[in-house]
Amino acid sequence: MIGLGKMGANMTERLLTGGHEVVAFDRSPEAVAASAAKGAIGAASLDEMVAASGEVGQRVVWIMVPAGAPTQSTVDALGGMLGAGDIVIDGGNSKYLDTQVRAAQLAEHGITMLDSGTSGGVWGLANGYCLMIGGPGDAYRRCEPVFKTLAPSTGGLIHVDEAHGSGHFVKMVHNGIEYAMMQSYAEGFEIIEKSPFNVDQAALAEAWMHGSVVRSWLLELLAEYLAKDPELAGLKAYVEDSGEGRWTVDAAVQFGAPAPVIAASLFARFASRDDNAYGLRMLSAMRNSFGGHAVKQG
Amino acid sequence: MIGLGKMGANMTERLLTGGHEVVAFDRSPEAVAASAAKGAIGAASLDEMVAASGEVGQRVVWIMVPAGAPTQSTVDALGGMLGAGDIVIDGGNSKYLDTQVRAAQLAEHGITMLDSGTSGGVWGLANGYCLMIGGPGDAYRRCEPVFKTLAPSTGGLIHVDEAHGSGHFVKMVHNGIEYAMMQSYAEGFEIIEKSPFNVDQAALAEAWMHGSVVRSWLLELLAEYLAKDPELAGLKAYVEDSGEGRWTVDAAVQFGAPAPVIAASLFARFASRDDNAYGLRMLSAMRNSFGGHAVKQG
Repeated sequence: MIGLGKMGANMTERLLTGGHEVVAFDRSPEAVAASAAKGAIGAASLDEMVAASGEVGQRVVWIMVPAGAPTQSTVDALGGMLGAGDIVIDGGNSKYLDTQVRAAQLAEHGITMLDSGTSGGVWGLANGYCLMIGGPGDAYRRCEPVFKTLAPSTGGLIHVDEAHGSGHFVKMVHNGIEYAMMQSYAEGFEIIEKSPFNVDQAALAEAWMHGSVVRSWLLELLAEYLAKDPELAGLKAYVEDSGEGRWTVDAAVQFGAPAPVIAASLFARFASRDDNAYGLRMLSAMRNSFGGHAVKQG
Repeated sequence: MIGLGKMGANMTERLLTGGHEVVAFDRSPEAVAASAAKGAIGAASLDEMVAASGEVGQRVVWIMVPAGAPTQSTVDALGGMLGAGDIVIDGGNSKYLDTQVRAAQLAEHGITMLDSGTSGGVWGLANGYCLMIGGPGDAYRRCEPVFKTLAPSTGGLIHVDEAHGSGHFVKMVHNGIEYAMMQSYAEGFEIIEKSPFNVDQAALAEAWMHGSVVRSWLLELLAEYLAKDPELAGLKAYVEDSGEGRWTVDAAVQFGAPAPVIAASLFARFASRDDNAYGLRMLSAMRNSFGGHAVKQG
């Protein structure tokens, strides 16, 4: 396991609890020590990790580092360290197109890549992670005991397609859906908040968790949040994104699939980051120029 | 209980199972007989139902008929039959503004109206209905044993506000959220279907039910549907709406609440109903006229 952040450390722990041997590496010695204390074999470097991971052709290396440059540099390094028959699994939120390039890069060394779309966040340790795996079936089957341990006991494991990147692709769409579901709730609760009715939003979210059509895990998390901060007083109306919504909209455009609500959810986040937006000042300029409407001065 | 359709009949049964006495009326004698066979007191007319429902001031009448004219005519009739201290509950999907007018209409006869936003569909009989109740607290408390029997044992009951219509209002927004959540999944699965990957959508929906961030009751229903008809071959891409999405967008406009994804979900349904849309022909006319692009002839 390379990368012992909140995801990698918890997955290491779940694997250890499931009876697997895990060699754990992170740039942070403290993170390595923490996983070693749970029963992992700690490694102080990538070289040490590879050396402790068994014979060439038998090694399975799980990368759980941030998407982008950290994942690329890890793949670059592993390409020179592993050998024919070894398997590299990227469990992060990599762009599926990058994954396809990396799989080809590793294949030059005889290394098979699998991509794992991994959902579940910090709750995965206890409940298991929903895993969407892309890549060749023989490599999938070799790693299946690992996947089954990480996934919930009830299911939540799918071999998406033999094609590289297919796991990351459906995980990306999963996150696009998540953006739009979150926006759905956000808009509904805002309409209620702006209505003349005096509604206990925390109690409403909690009530909706029992028997209603809109009950979901996201609503459960929202109800728990509202129970602690019913006025959302501790938050600013500024929402980041971490890439997968953008890539989902890119994919919708590429494949000609209409995705108005996923796109609108992404754009709502962009709009949240600018409290004096250029586009809105443009609108004011036009209302003032053409309609003679009074506008707010900057 | 007035109205023994799929909702009213199941609610009658759940009330009987919970030890309540229920006088049941429907225009259909067969429906009355079916509820009577489950233990309800059957009534052949509204008059007979009212007569069998106890003394004036003690009666609680639940209306479970379609929103609009059927509900209005039922309220009109009850206004002349019930008396001071009686309670009328509208459990249907009435427009909350209509409910406010009807509450005032019944108040002229000393009758208190409560409005119950009722979610759960055909699954409510077994699991209970999520109930969002609007109206005066004293009437709410008098009827609470009824609500508690209808609601799930785990919760799912909220007295939204003393104001009439507040129950129907939050149920309306609930359905607006539902439109947008459904659209979120629909778009995501369409992007996957149009991608180059060969994905078993039924297996994916089922996998997402275990440990993923997008798990929900709607996804569970979708997974069950896909298991039976994985290609959606039995369906035409034509989607109706039953009013609550429109009213939610109306409310968003009235209260100045931005609701792009709820509005887009509603408009996607409108667009689904026209296979040669005027607006799209307008676009073709402009592409052809201004750009000289080839367009499909009608």
